[in-house]
Amino acid sequence: MPYVYAFDHQHRTPPMQQKDLLGGKGANLAEMTTVLGLPVPPGFTITTDACRAYMHGGWPKGLDEEIAKHVRKLEKAMGRRLGDPADPLLVSVRSGAKFSMPGMMDTVLNLGLNDQSVEGLAGVTGDERFAYDSYRRFISMYGRIVLGIDGDRFEHPLEHMKERTGAASDTDVTAEGWRELSAEYLAVVADATGSPFPQDPTAQLRGAVEAVFRSWNGARAIAYRNREKISHELGTAVNVQVMVFGNRDANSGTGVGFTRDAATGENTPYGDFLVNAQGEDVVAGIRNTEDLDHMKLHFPEIHADLLDIFARLERHYQDMCDTEFTIEQGKLWMLQTRVGKRTGVAALKMAVDMTQGTGSGKQRWKISKKEAVMRVTAEHLDSVLHPHLAGSGQVIATGLAASPGGAVGKVYFTADDAADAADRGEDVILVRNETSPEDVHGMMVSRGILTARGGLVSHAAVVARGWGTPAIVGAEAVKIEGSRFTVGDIVVNEGDVISLDGSSGQVVLGAMALEQAEPPAEFATILQWADEIRKGKLGVRANADTGEDAAKARELGAEGIGLCRTEHMFLAPDRLPIVREMILARTDDEEAAALEKLRAAQEADFYEVLDAMDGLPVTVRLLDPPLHEFLPSVEELKIKQATEGLSDEEHEMLAAAESWSEHNPMIGTRGVRLGVIKPGLYAMQVRALLAAAARLRDEGKKPVVEIMIPLTVTREELAAARGWVQAEIDAALSGTGKAKQPKITIGTMIETPRAALRADEIAEESDFFSFGTNDLTQLTFGFSRDDVESRMMPAYLEQGLLKRNPFETIDQTGVGELVRMGAKLGRSTKPKLKLGVCGEHGGDPESIQLFYDAGLDYVSCSPFRVPIARLAAAQAVVGTSNSTK
Amino acid sequence: MPYVYAFDHQHRTPPMQQKDLLGGKGANLAEMTTVLGLPVPPGFTITTDACRAYMHGGWPKGLDEEIAKHVRKLEKAMGRRLGDPADPLLVSVRSGAKFSMPGMMDTVLNLGLNDQSVEGLAGVTGDERFAYDSYRRFISMYGRIVLGIDGDRFEHPLEHMKERTGAASDTDVTAEGWRELSAEYLAVVADATGSPFPQDPTAQLRGAVEAVFRSWNGARAIAYRNREKISHELGTAVNVQVMVFGNRDANSGTGVGFTRDAATGENTPYGDFLVNAQGEDVVAGIRNTEDLDHMKLHFPEIHADLLDIFARLERHYQDMCDTEFTIEQGKLWMLQTRVGKRTGVAALKMAVDMTQGTGSGKQRWKISKKEAVMRVTAEHLDSVLHPHLAGSGQVIATGLAASPGGAVGKVYFTADDAADAADRGEDVILVRNETSPEDVHGMMVSRGILTARGGLVSHAAVVARGWGTPAIVGAEAVKIEGSRFTVGDIVVNEGDVISLDGSSGQVVLGAMALEQAEPPAEFATILQWADEIRKGKLGVRANADTGEDAAKARELGAEGIGLCRTEHMFLAPDRLPIVREMILARTDDEEAAALEKLRAAQEADFYEVLDAMDGLPVTVRLLDPPLHEFLPSVEELKIKQATEGLSDEEHEMLAAAESWSEHNPMIGTRGVRLGVIKPGLYAMQVRALLAAAARLRDEGKKPVVEIMIPLTVTREELAAARGWVQAEIDAALSGTGKAKQPKITIGTMIETPRAALRADEIAEESDFFSFGTNDLTQLTFGFSRDDVESRMMPAYLEQGLLKRNPFETIDQTGVGELVRMGAKLGRSTKPKLKLGVCGEHGGDPESIQLFYDAGLDYVSCSPFRVPIARLAAAQAVVGTSNSTK
Repeated sequence: MPYVYAFDHQHRTPPMQQKDLLGGKGANLAEMTTVLGLPVPPGFTITTDACRAYMHGGWPKGLDEEIAKHVRKLEKAMGRRLGDPADPLLVSVRSGAKFSMPGMMDTVLNLGLNDQSVEGLAGVTGDERFAYDSYRRFISMYGRIVLGIDGDRFEHPLEHMKERTGAASDTDVTAEGWRELSAEYLAVVADATGSPFPQDPTAQLRGAVEAVFRSWNGARAIAYRNREKISHELGTAVNVQVMVFGNRDANSGTGVGFTRDAATGENTPYGDFLVNAQGEDVVAGIRNTEDLDHMKLHFPEIHADLLDIFARLERHYQDMCDTEFTIEQGKLWMLQTRVGKRTGVAALKMAVDMTQGTGSGKQRWKISKKEAVMRVTAEHLDSVLHPHLAGSGQVIATGLAASPGGAVGKVYFTADDAADAADRGEDVILVRNETSPEDVHGMMVSRGILTARGGLVSHAAVVARGWGTPAIVGAEAVKIEGSRFTVGDIVVNEGDVISLDGSSGQVVLGAMALEQAEPPAEFATILQWADEIRKGKLGVRANADTGEDAAKARELGAEGIGLCRTEHMFLAPDRLPIVREMILARTDDEEAAALEKLRAAQEADFYEVLDAMDGLPVTVRLLDPPLHEFLPSVEELKIKQATEGLSDEEHEMLAAAESWSEHNPMIGTRGVRLGVIKPGLYAMQVRALLAAAARLRDEGKKPVVEIMIPLTVTREELAAARGWVQAEIDAALSGTGKAKQPKITIGTMIETPRAALRADEIAEESDFFSFGTNDLTQLTFGFSRDDVESRMMPAYLEQGLLKRNPFETIDQTGVGELVRMGAKLGRSTKPKLKLGVCGEHGGDPESIQLFYDAGLDYVSCSPFRVPIARLAAAQAVVGTSNSTK
Repeated sequence: MPYVYAFDHQHRTPPMQQKDLLGGKGANLAEMTTVLGLPVPPGFTITTDACRAYMHGGWPKGLDEEIAKHVRKLEKAMGRRLGDPADPLLVSVRSGAKFSMPGMMDTVLNLGLNDQSVEGLAGVTGDERFAYDSYRRFISMYGRIVLGIDGDRFEHPLEHMKERTGAASDTDVTAEGWRELSAEYLAVVADATGSPFPQDPTAQLRGAVEAVFRSWNGARAIAYRNREKISHELGTAVNVQVMVFGNRDANSGTGVGFTRDAATGENTPYGDFLVNAQGEDVVAGIRNTEDLDHMKLHFPEIHADLLDIFARLERHYQDMCDTEFTIEQGKLWMLQTRVGKRTGVAALKMAVDMTQGTGSGKQRWKISKKEAVMRVTAEHLDSVLHPHLAGSGQVIATGLAASPGGAVGKVYFTADDAADAADRGEDVILVRNETSPEDVHGMMVSRGILTARGGLVSHAAVVARGWGTPAIVGAEAVKIEGSRFTVGDIVVNEGDVISLDGSSGQVVLGAMALEQAEPPAEFATILQWADEIRKGKLGVRANADTGEDAAKARELGAEGIGLCRTEHMFLAPDRLPIVREMILARTDDEEAAALEKLRAAQEADFYEVLDAMDGLPVTVRLLDPPLHEFLPSVEELKIKQATEGLSDEEHEMLAAAESWSEHNPMIGTRGVRLGVIKPGLYAMQVRALLAAAARLRDEGKKPVVEIMIPLTVTREELAAARGWVQAEIDAALSGTGKAKQPKITIGTMIETPRAALRADEIAEESDFFSFGTNDLTQLTFGFSRDDVESRMMPAYLEQGLLKRNPFETIDQTGVGELVRMGAKLGRSTKPKLKLGVCGEHGGDPESIQLFYDAGLDYVSCSPFRVPIARLAAAQAVVGTSNSTK
């Protein structure tokens, strides 16, 4: 297999389907070149295979020769030679991984310039200023990226030169200024590296390609992939492309364009454009951009061509595309395209719109409802569910609405300060002139992002939208000075609170209230289509402990409760003293009296939950947490004992707390083990539940009760627990006619590795399983979530020792294997065993796919995640049917 | 399949091989009857099938009819009818499970007596006293066992009657006395049950059989089976046998006999005998017995017959047998035989002796070395390794040496008090007149047992020998009075310390020193044979952390160290301050300085361990426990802070202790996670190890080092850790010639479920696996050992929710499944991957069988368990080859 493909290589498979090999950018450049016939500057792609080979064994054998061959082809096609002192060919070298990683990896432009060819460029263009501007850009870019020289070492001479020559901005700098700066830059390189700047373009090219390979494993790229859940194994492709210059003259320009509005989803092309500029000027947001209407004024014909290309791209990709383009001396070149990122609102609107059809006649195209459902991600839904600012406040600035949603927090001016503050538990708003990949760790933890510069496709805007973090960019009134910013007379110091409305672009002084957003109409449409797809295949329930939560969950589409925890009921301030009475009881009678009080309280709780879910199943988990959680802290009592002394009651409490305290309570006396040690407890809970169900039936309602035993490890244990439950049911129902009997099933959590390994036995005693993947993850890894998530997990993710936080996305091959095993073994005993999952993985799309593939009947998650789970469940159903085609 | 078989039923398979069905007693009775043709009173066995059917569904259908048929056969054979008022047939009803459970289940004798037949018995025997003695025994036995009446209700009238009639002992009671007592007993039954005593012998028989069935699930039987690891599913058979009477007259008697000496193993028949007594009198140790030589005086011919039977039994069973026999009016009857229990010393001696051959001519028999190895159990070896009393002290009494070994402890007089004291952590000597099954819970926790009455086959003696608990029985000088005992003038109060020499029978006042026993010569012989069997199939290593332990382990036959923990080295008083320096270090330099100090200390430790194991592999586990274990308690520091205040250093210590404290340290930041967070730590340990190995090589020794990474969960984690280790090795060995390089391999513990599930991946980075089954058990069950073993485990075992304590014997189907999976997956990647196990299961015979079957190369256990592991390993090898035949 070759390591290099020209953009015009005639692939057997359409290049857009070969992103694994060519990377996203390379695949789309080839697609535009060979399939769509669009004006793309010629070039070639070095494959991800080459990058992987490089990562595992250094520079691949034969790659130099392949590159040289393709360079010769380029030179022949363009009639220019790389490094030609008279008329040099210049190329760009850009990374291009399978998945877009905006700004995360390196790019080198203007490659091929050296002390001779810069003169040739000046000669053929008749523009010495342009040639030396290009050269100094190249030296500094190459110096930073390939040679690893600190960017400041190039920044200072530039400022110094501008001062010296009295140039207010770059456009004021003369040819002589750029020439002097180029010489200074060459000296910087020689000083920093101990060697002269490489003059041989072949060496330059190899250096740049290797730098792109290396950047795949740069810290910021790794952090990004961890955040975005992209495999570290993929590697990046490298695209080498003939340079075209948007900064050639006033008849040139560069821009980025979206075929539809990426923020609202409106079917209106949108873009940012700069006359006489290179692409990096647009993306970095260094100069404020103009929109496409403005471009139309300068370049009416090219504007029309561009819109035509947009339409062709949309039809071809059957989706909204984003593009980069350059006009060089009146000619339009397409530098890149891809299916565009979009806000949640836009994703919903586009998905629904595209099912209606676009274009006319033969050019008309549309997508199916199923495809529409696949187009919307969990993050999209999440973002439209984001809160927004409520009421009105003092608007001190308005910028571009880059990422919707409201955010309130304390202002910090560097990513490090933001990260520190977030670690202290503060809500943070990161305020920057512009952001760069170096700021990602601070952006990740911020509630909102505000920049003074940049457009809607600036780094800050793209990243924030991807994460659903509210953001305002290009708020030019904001002047940052050290650890404060001013807007006119108003001073906002570090730590002061502001509020951002990412949907309107308004910056408000002080804290505003946050209110839940009303999702757009398409939200309901997409979810309805999702429900149609998953119906009968994968149910969605909610985890809810109160009538209120249950009602909310039902409103959001939950089809039952997968986990009703009963401990929250125990912790209510009016219950806790009774729970303590029960624990402290010295005689069976005292214990029974306390249990009876609890029973009455629990009955009321259960009544509300069952009422809210009338007709839908409610899985009630009997008491799970260790009893010491209901007692005061031993440490506090002991300190009080040593200082003030304890009352008799406190003495008793201390003795109880000490006796119930455990070294590792997570794997101590909890779950069904409590039931064994205090059998009256579970019996009480069942009585309360039966009484609540009976009341509802008397009122003509249809309670559907599922009683769930937690933390089972052996069949014998479950048989015993089932016995206690069944005894209460039998007692409660004796004398009740069959028709009057509520529907009650008894099942267990599968949350220990042993339960999964012995699920065939355990199924004998169980009407249903609910996989408790939180505990299962804790035990399979030996990770105490409370202890490792803050201390260890960040280091593990950063160093790639774990690909994901397994508490967020299920560990496919370890914990997931136990889920598959448990499901298969359980069904081997009882083919119709009902299987579900509760715990946070039940709301995570990737985990939902695994659960569906493992044969589970439903997932259960927090009420707020129910819409996302409904969508993800549908996508899992489609994904599986696609993959089995 | 019938539920009932006569003893003389012609089975197709020899009955002794049908203990599953007939129980041990029934199988051997049938064997003696049909195969050996010995004089056995006729009878029949109700099978364990019937018992299991009863347990699952109540009294089995058709069983009454089968019993009736067999009773009629008995009646016909004996020419007497059950309940015949003139000449009644009397039967005994005894339990008989597959495995002997001495005294654990119920027996009813003299069944068939009622108000009429007692007169018949008096008539035909001409001995009214005998008849009424038998009747009162029957009523009280039946009352207690079948009708559940408190034994005291029968004891009081007996004492009262004896007082009233002035009878000093039972033998003084007249016929009239027994008759009156019988009448009183009938009244007791009527009063206690509200119904008259059942007069119908058929009803009596059904009641007795059912009582035996029920006794299988009696609390004491369950406790015994848990202790002895016998399945609760087996059920018991019931043997109904025609009564013969050793208490018929002076020409009658009863005894128990061993074909060899069960205490020493000498090839000398041994037994206890009583003239004119029933078997229960011998077993209960109520009367002091005579030996077989004494019996010879009374019954010379019968004695000769008995010895002949002993020889036939030994040859037939090819093992030492124990027997029960009765002489009724000059005729010898064999009531029971089985392969006899024996002390460890005896087991070793008999096993080795029997390979030499016994008997002469055609009757000569011997066993193979392999068979000899299979005859010795772990408990046997354990007992000969028991400590004995050293020096001499004040011997206050001498009894029978019932179970060897020395014991020192505080005396307690009831099983409950003994259990309470043991719970408080005291060493306990239980002192009783005699023991009964009700005392088992106190016997189990006692260091030693002393009884004032009973012989070498009394309950106390049999039970203590089985457990290897030192015991002295029949120390008649000991007079127990409430909570003290006296010997002459000496008073020993509850809580006073005494010492027992279970090998000599001497009771010593006060605490003696305990010294390790010198095992008998056969110990080495058996282990040598065991080693021959297991050589090249299953290795035995030791877990040792110091040079001293390593030397001890090597002496006991260890073939290397499977687990050298490095944390113990950290906890030494001179190291702890350095460890704290390391944890508290504020700068990298401070940390490095502390690590360097630790390195020097560790090097010395490693030198000693490697030196002691010169030429044998030593697996060193890098630091495993959470760092807070090396810091003072947060609670104590906080109390001091609240009261006296803290020094600066203590303040710092508190901050560190708080920052390193965890909710669930067992599943927190420990093992390789520490390595990730403090990478200098592992590097330091490796440097110390390499330096120690280098020194030894310089001295001409051959250190074999295996470096083990604990708590791995992902391949990436192990790859990183392997990288740190390899970097140190490379650094240390750079410039060293290949020939000079020590042999070093790098591997990991498999102790999380995930590591077992992903062992194929993990094997890619590992030269060996060591299964850490302690942690694996904790995580597979979610059992924090520190928390559940004391609180929860007893209830779980008692209620049968767990069959074994999975920390003692590996959970075959859960944790064991992960071991099998891990071994298989690991070898799928690396067919020659070395596999071992460390942790306590490595010394447990049943677990060793699983490890061998799973393909492990070695087991590792504490030095003291090494001989047992060598034996068990050989038995595993034989067991597997037997089972695969």
